Amino acid sequence: MPLIERLAVIGTGLIGGSFALALKQAGQVGAVVGAGRSQENLQTAKARGVLDEIAADAAHAVQGADFVLLAVPVGQMGGVMQAIAAELAPEVVVSDVGSTKQDVVALAQTYLAGSLSHFVPGHPIAGAETSGAEAAHADLFSGKNVVLTPLPDTNFRALEKAQSAWQACGAEVSIMQAAQHDRIFAAVSHLPHLLAYALVDMIAGRPDAELLFNYAASGFRDFTRIAASSPEMWRDIALANKHALLVELEAYEAKLEELKTALSAADGEALSKIFSRAQEARSAWSKKR
Amino acid sequence: MPLIERLAVIGTGLIGGSFALALKQAGQVGAVVGAGRSQENLQTAKARGVLDEIAADAAHAVQGADFVLLAVPVGQMGGVMQAIAAELAPEVVVSDVGSTKQDVVALAQTYLAGSLSHFVPGHPIAGAETSGAEAAHADLFSGKNVVLTPLPDTNFRALEKAQSAWQACGAEVSIMQAAQHDRIFAAVSHLPHLLAYALVDMIAGRPDAELLFNYAASGFRDFTRIAASSPEMWRDIALANKHALLVELEAYEAKLEELKTALSAADGEALSKIFSRAQEARSAWSKKR
Repeated sequence: MPLIERLAVIGTGLIGGSFALALKQAGQVGAVVGAGRSQENLQTAKARGVLDEIAADAAHAVQGADFVLLAVPVGQMGGVMQAIAAELAPEVVVSDVGSTKQDVVALAQTYLAGSLSHFVPGHPIAGAETSGAEAAHADLFSGKNVVLTPLPDTNFRALEKAQSAWQACGAEVSIMQAAQHDRIFAAVSHLPHLLAYALVDMIAGRPDAELLFNYAASGFRDFTRIAASSPEMWRDIALANKHALLVELEAYEAKLEELKTALSAADGEALSKIFSRAQEARSAWSKKR
Repeated sequence: MPLIERLAVIGTGLIGGSFALALKQAGQVGAVVGAGRSQENLQTAKARGVLDEIAADAAHAVQGADFVLLAVPVGQMGGVMQAIAAELAPEVVVSDVGSTKQDVVALAQTYLAGSLSHFVPGHPIAGAETSGAEAAHADLFSGKNVVLTPLPDTNFRALEKAQSAWQACGAEVSIMQAAQHDRIFAAVSHLPHLLAYALVDMIAGRPDAELLFNYAASGFRDFTRIAASSPEMWRDIALANKHALLVELEAYEAKLEELKTALSAADGEALSKIFSRAQEARSAWSKKR
């Protein structure tokens, strides 16, 4: 018997669609039913074998499901939770894939108050430049980290089922509190996005922007790649993780002051120390991967 | 007849060696003589056909040459200029490949005062993770930008010869003043390096650095790739371009304040505006390349 008999995917884009495909490939799901805002995308998902059925809406999709994955943008999350709340059986596991977790927990506490014992917030660390059911593929999570942030009320059966499902997709699962998750990703993901957007916007706003961009080379290309990410998605992430992100921004500003002081004083030794520590840490990190 | 009859390369690493190989491939150089600090590297260069002759030192290398390329790290530049000054015939073209130009111009004004009319400072925009004669290859500059920053005293014959040599290597040559060069590269190259070093050093200095690095993914990888660059080289570049770089650091801090203000006020519209402008500029830039 598969791990999941009937999977409901609300939002059958890259992440939701790849979750379904990975479970199918692993033989760990019976049927997959999907709901979403774009009929065209749902038809693509069905044509590609991501979905077996298309439901009329989220409320219909979750009926009879034993696992519900909420894979919609964070801006639609509250509405979807409201729509499904009355339809959730006590044994169904509900999970999500949002990039921030404390905000999703807060929404669940508001809209899924009766289902908290079987709600398992999650975050698969698998970005991609593509989107939609068209881009979904069974190997998206292979070897990637997935963080689960259970609530105090989440029961062990639900946590274990969510963990097994992600492991069946080939992912490495870690479990931590939502607040810790949000602190970690503020530092290693959300802050770098803000910094890359800031640099490109600073240059783009200048009268000689075209000249400057003309001499930008491969270092600039890689540093700013994440500034090509969806502005709406990153606005939502920044706002959702505002407090942790502000702490990181201030720590970063302090580091820039340290560099500015060293540079103003032409203190080569101090600059060397910062650059060398960073270079060693970066090289060690990339060797481990 | 080739453009250059006898080329002297002082410092036969990746850049100097690739210049020699590219000119050989184009049939635009007669003989190549090299000098450098590492006998082993010079032997490699000769074995690979980068050099035809190895000179005892820089002063010997430039004797009889009609083109001299100074391809040593900026820290050795003054010493090399002193060593060759007395040996330079009036018709020999002298050029360099440093990443900053006002400092090289100042050194030339001090040490090559008698040769300024045939000195053509240059900067090929062709970084690489590799180094040494072993890594040199004829196509390194193909399609890349090379900026020449002639002095007020530089004569047209010398400028034209340097320009033709780089074009023969397949490069696109631009000509501008040294101060403008240094302003442009402070913004699009030197600042991003400082920002990447700053982020990695900030994270590496924390008690939970290992945990944080463990969740860093592809966005972090690309953003910080340049933090794996040589700390000594970037210390020298930062110090050499200190004034322009401090201006850029302050402009960047002002942009971060703008982001912080928007974030503190949970002003999604202001965040969207910054992120969208950056996303559009970054996408337009990458389409042009």
